[in-house]
Amino acid sequence: MARQARAIRTRRTILEAAAAVFDECGYEASTIAQILDRAEVTRGALYFHFGSKEDLARSVLAEAVTTEGLGEQEFTMQEFVDAGLLLAHRLPREPLLSAALRLSIDQRARAAFGTRWPDWIDLGARLLTRAKERGEVFPHVSSVETARLFVGSWTGVGVVGASVAPSSALVTEVAHLLRMMIPSIAVPGVAVRLDLSPRRPARLLAARAARPD
Amino acid sequence: MARQARAIRTRRTILEAAAAVFDECGYEASTIAQILDRAEVTRGALYFHFGSKEDLARSVLAEAVTTEGLGEQEFTMQEFVDAGLLLAHRLPREPLLSAALRLSIDQRARAAFGTRWPDWIDLGARLLTRAKERGEVFPHVSSVETARLFVGSWTGVGVVGASVAPSSALVTEVAHLLRMMIPSIAVPGVAVRLDLSPRRPARLLAARAARPD
Repeated sequence: MARQARAIRTRRTILEAAAAVFDECGYEASTIAQILDRAEVTRGALYFHFGSKEDLARSVLAEAVTTEGLGEQEFTMQEFVDAGLLLAHRLPREPLLSAALRLSIDQRARAAFGTRWPDWIDLGARLLTRAKERGEVFPHVSSVETARLFVGSWTGVGVVGASVAPSSALVTEVAHLLRMMIPSIAVPGVAVRLDLSPRRPARLLAARAARPD
Repeated sequence: MARQARAIRTRRTILEAAAAVFDECGYEASTIAQILDRAEVTRGALYFHFGSKEDLARSVLAEAVTTEGLGEQEFTMQEFVDAGLLLAHRLPREPLLSAALRLSIDQRARAAFGTRWPDWIDLGARLLTRAKERGEVFPHVSSVETARLFVGSWTGVGVVGASVAPSSALVTEVAHLLRMMIPSIAVPGVAVRLDLSPRRPARLLAARAARPD
């Protein structure tokens, strides 16, 4: 393997190990020793790629806005729905994403590192604005306010659901949330043609993986 | 003042001081010394009422399901709405309530002390079931699932809103959330007669304060 490719792989291994430790223990309680243990790399390798635990937290957050699986659809509202479903499908499977959520809801970590919520809200608001221009969304709906409510609700449904209904998948809870909200956002003729199924994101990711690059 | 009344008042002072400290610093970082400082009571007084910091956290959570201001309404759905609006109005004003929320979203504190989310979900589900029996709610709406989604969304809208839109009052955000969700829960003839105004909870509390006991 070329030296550069190996370095990229090592960096990723360390970042995923840090995410897994942050996700399990919380940022405060996590130590570099635990991260080294999980990543099975030397202290020198870690400090070659990351300056500090703070740097690791910032790098985890940097990866937390991802649109993998999201593609153009007949209705832009479907893309809004897909963004919410895809993240809900991926979060329990990807420590980087669940660590980013945990860093965001931790008040001290949030004060130190900020969150990616503004970026998710931007993405949602852009999709809603485009959907509105195309006549898919009621004219009285505010894109920014609606995106903010959806990102907030999505987050809370994840946190409360994991606590009170741990056997229900996040993507199922988010699909319920969408079923409840979409009729107040999308005009009826569009709303009834959207696919809000919790199985949709797995299909989208499989279709993408099967496609030749 | 009778000795018992004084003891009750001292206990309350300590509990509110503990809540304020937990709310500001998080449970982990809070110390008994800070709580004594805030409450202006002796260490002996604190340990007379509470065995430990853990005991203080449990007692904060014990106070966190409160229905002050909630009264019988023509539509039971209005009572569901009122529960959500009243808590949103009171939380930023009452450290006991915001401390309870912070303890609940803190993963470590939650593992140690649990949360009151199940109780809020129970309250919401009971109101929705009664509203359904009275024909105010669509027959396909599941009371428990809907109450869980609402408690989750309420929580997340509070956490994300405080971070990305700190100038918008929680009660305003929750009123927006209700405007988005109610049309999917209540039948139209009831939905249009509900008062979802963010100013409603202040009016309810004022009316209650003005009433002779």
